[in-house]
Amino acid sequence: MAHPFISFLTDFGPDGPAPICRGVMLGIAPDAQIVDIAHGVRKYAIRDGAYLLWCALPYLPVGTHVAVVDPGVGTERLPIGIQTGRGDVLIGPDNGLLVPAAERLDGIVEARVLENRALMLPVTSSTFHGRDIFSPVAGHLAAGIPFEVVGPSIARESLVDLRFPTPQVDEGALRSSIVYIDSFGNVRLAGEPPDLVEAIGDLEEGQPLALEVDANGSGGPPITIDATWERTFGRTPVGATLVYQESFGQLAVADNQGNVAGRLGLHPDQRVIIRSAR
Amino acid sequence: MAHPFISFLTDFGPDGPAPICRGVMLGIAPDAQIVDIAHGVRKYAIRDGAYLLWCALPYLPVGTHVAVVDPGVGTERLPIGIQTGRGDVLIGPDNGLLVPAAERLDGIVEARVLENRALMLPVTSSTFHGRDIFSPVAGHLAAGIPFEVVGPSIARESLVDLRFPTPQVDEGALRSSIVYIDSFGNVRLAGEPPDLVEAIGDLEEGQPLALEVDANGSGGPPITIDATWERTFGRTPVGATLVYQESFGQLAVADNQGNVAGRLGLHPDQRVIIRSAR
Amino acid sequence: MAHPFISFLTDFGPDGPAPICRGVMLGIAPDAQIVDIAHGVRKYAIRDGAYLLWCALPYLPVGTHVAVVDPGVGTERLPIGIQTGRGDVLIGPDNGLLVPAAERLDGIVEARVLENRALMLPVTSSTFHGRDIFSPVAGHLAAGIPFEVVGPSIARESLVDLRFPTPQVDEGALRSSIVYIDSFGNVRLAGEPPDLVEAIGDLEEGQPLALEVDANGSGGPPITIDATWERTFGRTPVGATLVYQESFGQLAVADNQGNVAGRLGLHPDQRVIIRSAR
Repeated sequence: MAHPFISFLTDFGPDGPAPICRGVMLGIAPDAQIVDIAHGVRKYAIRDGAYLLWCALPYLPVGTHVAVVDPGVGTERLPIGIQTGRGDVLIGPDNGLLVPAAERLDGIVEARVLENRALMLPVTSSTFHGRDIFSPVAGHLAAGIPFEVVGPSIARESLVDLRFPTPQVDEGALRSSIVYIDSFGNVRLAGEPPDLVEAIGDLEEGQPLALEVDANGSGGPPITIDATWERTFGRTPVGATLVYQESFGQLAVADNQGNVAGRLGLHPDQRVIIRSAR
Repeated sequence: MAHPFISFLTDFGPDGPAPICRGVMLGIAPDAQIVDIAHGVRKYAIRDGAYLLWCALPYLPVGTHVAVVDPGVGTERLPIGIQTGRGDVLIGPDNGLLVPAAERLDGIVEARVLENRALMLPVTSSTFHGRDIFSPVAGHLAAGIPFEVVGPSIARESLVDLRFPTPQVDEGALRSSIVYIDSFGNVRLAGEPPDLVEAIGDLEEGQPLALEVDANGSGGPPITIDATWERTFGRTPVGATLVYQESFGQLAVADNQGNVAGRLGLHPDQRVIIRSAR
Repeated sequence: MAHPFISFLTDFGPDGPAPICRGVMLGIAPDAQIVDIAHGVRKYAIRDGAYLLWCALPYLPVGTHVAVVDPGVGTERLPIGIQTGRGDVLIGPDNGLLVPAAERLDGIVEARVLENRALMLPVTSSTFHGRDIFSPVAGHLAAGIPFEVVGPSIARESLVDLRFPTPQVDEGALRSSIVYIDSFGNVRLAGEPPDLVEAIGDLEEGQPLALEVDANGSGGPPITIDATWERTFGRTPVGATLVYQESFGQLAVADNQGNVAGRLGLHPDQRVIIRSAR
């Protein structure tokens, strides 16, 4: 407990009020080590936030993890805490944001509604629960209060759920979709390399692939992309498009030293079909 | 003093040299907890910086607060420290930046000119006082030197002053103006809900309001905005405009899940008249 | 060792995975003070990263400095550590990124290849050495392991080198070039004031200068800039262009309260000739 660990993710923007929340946490837990995972999550994009948490938390120390992407702030959506099998507590709104990451930290042990007003700021606004509820509760948890103090237990089944898209293996084609677009403009897809192998057979470095990105109801034709399967960026010519296993395990598409999402106007949830081009 | 608290606000930009200042502070006060309030303050916008400090500091622990929005760096403007009734010291240029926040922390107790060269870097450039003067002085304060060591006292009255605009209550209309536009594109106005009640009577959730934003000398017609008074974003349709009490207490205008300032081209200091539309 | 110091610079972008690396470091060295120098380095711009490190490190405490601008990740380029005369260890790819800064910290004492897999994450991806190799090795160094544990020594001469451009003094003209463009759009040039004095004689405040920026092979005419030599921004009219000694020692060009690089479309490596205009 010398340096309790807190992580923090929001859509408040790079110059938003996240530092005020940090100050509130440090006022309660002055020894905490706080790491900002991201404050530039696409505004109100709950799934983007859930995805980034899911990627990050397994690499972070056990601790208290605060996440706020919260279009429903001030409505009847509940403020919750989720205790994980690994020993973390995740704090945020009950809108699905916390669930995939919590499942990944050895599962959800218990969820509680944040109701103990003694752990919150004296005045709680209706628009800034990050500052008034989530941060002070997280600070108290980091400072050592037991989880059950935050409020009553709530059944796992009654939490708002959120699931990432999954791929479908067809004969000769993997039907996937865009899960997330990262800060390089690289595109994370549903599925992992074994799914692609199941669909199109063994993968060799440099093997040509044909991707078809659905126009998703715009009425336009699908976008086709010529790519190669690669293990690493460095072996690909600058500007060439590759499909690879990105560092969190999933399939991904990138232009080497470029921005494939920006170049082609790609966005989350577009369907993507991958076929061999040999 | 185990973990002295320092906050830090500048207009250096997200990839500017703020981290170098952090390094200077930590070289002197290695145990400090440093929170970056913002480094993306609009360049040279002293009032924006003053407003963000005024919002943030009441929520932060007592400590040393460094702020640098300093178009006059290298001229005869003074480098100063201000001690507050709450026990903080604010460090920065004497251009008004520190004054409103200091007043809010139980008032200004004493101001001093930073003159003690033993507390500064050995070489002080004429363009980067953040690194060479403000940060090392703040580091020494965080490490425990008494405030009076920084330099001679200066009369409160001789400090450059800065005041935020105030609203005017008319019969049936509140004459306000834009104080600040936040990272969501939400617009903070001069005045608080009681001012609006005094002008137009009691406010009910969903009550229609008519706003008139002055074109401010462009010769164009005023911008009119239809909005409703709301307690929270969540009850408003996506894209609808609301007037509400934002979480720092003031009146504000927002598009729910949108960017009202961007949509209408609003900017600080435009006059805004609010009337009931019932 | 109570609070070992780590600095961290990458081109991962403001919402990239740098915080995951922070988490990895803090999992190994929970007491570390970590300062992010920059994560918005121009993508793959090794020299920009090298320049920012060169500027920053002399102002930071002695410690472990991690830098990742690494277009060759996953190829045969080596992961290295460099020990400096001042007592730091720099960690990153062997592509020149670390060399100028290390030289400036009282010189390179020893370089080693990072080969000890016990210091890395159990699974090392081929695309994210920042997380899997550089951060855990830095965490172990901050936690106190001796430098020689990271891997075998490598000769200084075999490191990839990187040098910043240098100016040429002619009769009546300094032939320089653009080294870096900072977050204000100010332009850092090769050379220091004594170089300019050698070329055109003594400099007085307000002295008119004529700059000629080469179109660099575009076939267009050179850009000419009228400027004055100044000691500080504050004495220059808003919008006027000045040449000055920026706070890291070099010659620089700026528009007072403006963005000269943006206004004129300047970019690194353009040649710049400075002459007196008296």
